[in-house]
Amino acid sequence: MSSSSNIKVTPIQNSKIDSVDFNNLSFGTVFTDYMFECEYKDGEWQTPEIKPYGNISVAPSARVFHYGQAVFEGMKAYKDENDDIFLFRPEENFKRINKSSSRLAIPEFPKEYFMDGLAQLLNLEKDWIKKGKGNSMYIRPFVIATQPAISASPANEYKFMIILSPAQAYYAGEVRVLIAEEYSRAADGGVGFAKAAGNYAAQFYPTKLAHEKGFQQIIWTDANTHEYLEEAGTMNVFFRINDKLVTAPNNDRILDGITRKSVIQLAQDNNIEVEVRRVSVAEIKEAANNNTLLEIFGTGTATVINPIIGFSHKGASYDLPKIENSYASLFKEKLTNIQYNLADDPHNWRLKIS
Amino acid sequence: MSSSSNIKVTPIQNSKIDSVDFNNLSFGTVFTDYMFECEYKDGEWQTPEIKPYGNISVAPSARVFHYGQAVFEGMKAYKDENDDIFLFRPEENFKRINKSSSRLAIPEFPKEYFMDGLAQLLNLEKDWIKKGKGNSMYIRPFVIATQPAISASPANEYKFMIILSPAQAYYAGEVRVLIAEEYSRAADGGVGFAKAAGNYAAQFYPTKLAHEKGFQQIIWTDANTHEYLEEAGTMNVFFRINDKLVTAPNNDRILDGITRKSVIQLAQDNNIEVEVRRVSVAEIKEAANNNTLLEIFGTGTATVINPIIGFSHKGASYDLPKIENSYASLFKEKLTNIQYNLADDPHNWRLKIS
Repeated sequence: MSSSSNIKVTPIQNSKIDSVDFNNLSFGTVFTDYMFECEYKDGEWQTPEIKPYGNISVAPSARVFHYGQAVFEGMKAYKDENDDIFLFRPEENFKRINKSSSRLAIPEFPKEYFMDGLAQLLNLEKDWIKKGKGNSMYIRPFVIATQPAISASPANEYKFMIILSPAQAYYAGEVRVLIAEEYSRAADGGVGFAKAAGNYAAQFYPTKLAHEKGFQQIIWTDANTHEYLEEAGTMNVFFRINDKLVTAPNNDRILDGITRKSVIQLAQDNNIEVEVRRVSVAEIKEAANNNTLLEIFGTGTATVINPIIGFSHKGASYDLPKIENSYASLFKEKLTNIQYNLADDPHNWRLKIS
Repeated sequence: MSSSSNIKVTPIQNSKIDSVDFNNLSFGTVFTDYMFECEYKDGEWQTPEIKPYGNISVAPSARVFHYGQAVFEGMKAYKDENDDIFLFRPEENFKRINKSSSRLAIPEFPKEYFMDGLAQLLNLEKDWIKKGKGNSMYIRPFVIATQPAISASPANEYKFMIILSPAQAYYAGEVRVLIAEEYSRAADGGVGFAKAAGNYAAQFYPTKLAHEKGFQQIIWTDANTHEYLEEAGTMNVFFRINDKLVTAPNNDRILDGITRKSVIQLAQDNNIEVEVRRVSVAEIKEAANNNTLLEIFGTGTATVINPIIGFSHKGASYDLPKIENSYASLFKEKLTNIQYNLADDPHNWRLKIS
């Protein structure tokens, strides 16, 4: 990948890398030496910069603090045995952050800045990306409204940033989920499809209540009837009924997950039937009672594929069978093999960075 | 009001007050010399500080930037002809910010810090509060999640701040509103009742589209059917049908506005019938066609009472009659007379600060 943007690079004095224990990383807490930053003002995105990672100086009146005008993406970079570095479908993240931005009245970011920024940043931080399946560099692009004025309208100043956090295989433990009966994540005609900052904090309290009852996550249902299954907030959700996969369609409430659409493609490649349609709670409970519900799993960039071992709804608990040759394992293997350059890449999902 | 908290005060070197043109204030853009700040860490709110207003240093990984974990309040202080300074129902703002915080899994703020912080800050900034009806000090308390870690869960570090912005009478011009047909503000079971930051950015894009069609604001409808009128995002909304007022009830989608509840009380005090119930779009259109819809007005801290001169729904436009002795004028007069210490205060809404 060539880098044609004029990105101004300010070098670090000393790397922090030797202080990091790469075998004991807590997700999203350690950041690399550099960060990417680009300001929007006077109606345009200014020259991007790569500079030492550190605090930013923001006015207390910046709109992001008051009105949540902020969107983000989650991506990963992978290193293969030859020390080559790859991204996975980065154009999808690029398109989605601008889709999220548009819905929040944030100006779209130029593709060249996004792609070149990623490439230059990852090249500088090569040593922070560790080999071995499971190891990756978690990449967090985000945009925040920085204009110092507290009227409730779109800002005219923003900051687009990319920060990097090395990650190990994410093992969430045995995940049991609660199906939402009362709280909701998104409204029809709202911003649920966007990676809008406010969508996430809105889930914290109901999720805390679920934790207290012994559930790790919530599968959200439609706000109108709570009868249809949507997504899990940081994951899309798939249900395996007999040998068929079903998952909810994208709409204005559900995030268009990149891992989700990759799993749908992999299922098709492997002659596994996938139905993308509304999935009712009643159907899943009935399938669990009939022993035809064989698996539930979540998909997302951080977790890749996250098997769910049971769920609860209106006080009734359901355990899923322990099965061999699960779809969850199959898709995780196929997907990570592509990500780590261990398998062919028929759909051109990998992008070699260096 | 006594101040018993130990608030640490760092004095300014020079006041900015002489550089401010108090006759040409743009809302929310000028801030006073001081700000209030209190950090939450190690499981508790630390000693509050009042310090010179200025930028804050925040990690790019702070959760507020990624997950919108932030809530706020809007209040005003008023100066009477004797240079006494008053707040209007500040306990309601205190209660509401903690209600908002709870829904976003933010620790509640101590009442003493809130009330004493306001009092000390306003005392320091007395000269910034100008006499005369319409002049006020707009007060913005807010809380942001500052913990530098991008996992999607509640933070363990926060900043509670209060910033002050002098304001003149807010005249929004002639306001025509669009009734929402497609976009939504809040879901049942969501955070619409809270002053959650993310609720506001979510409205920017649909409001921009409304602006382009010549409407200043949107009156949101229920996300399920778009048949019932809810609120206007920064205002609650009242409809006058003949001599009766109707307004939507509070629920988990609609903000429990302090101006709204004060208007309901003033209506009762003045023997004006108020019905707090669901209001359908069909009812309002029919009343407009029958000429029984005499007024629509919004209520909110920034605007006080904002008359609406017309609305549009599904391509049909409706103009409201120009009437004398409007309820909007009556309530604005009664409310501001109480706020500026120009009338009796039978419900003890005023709180003298100094």
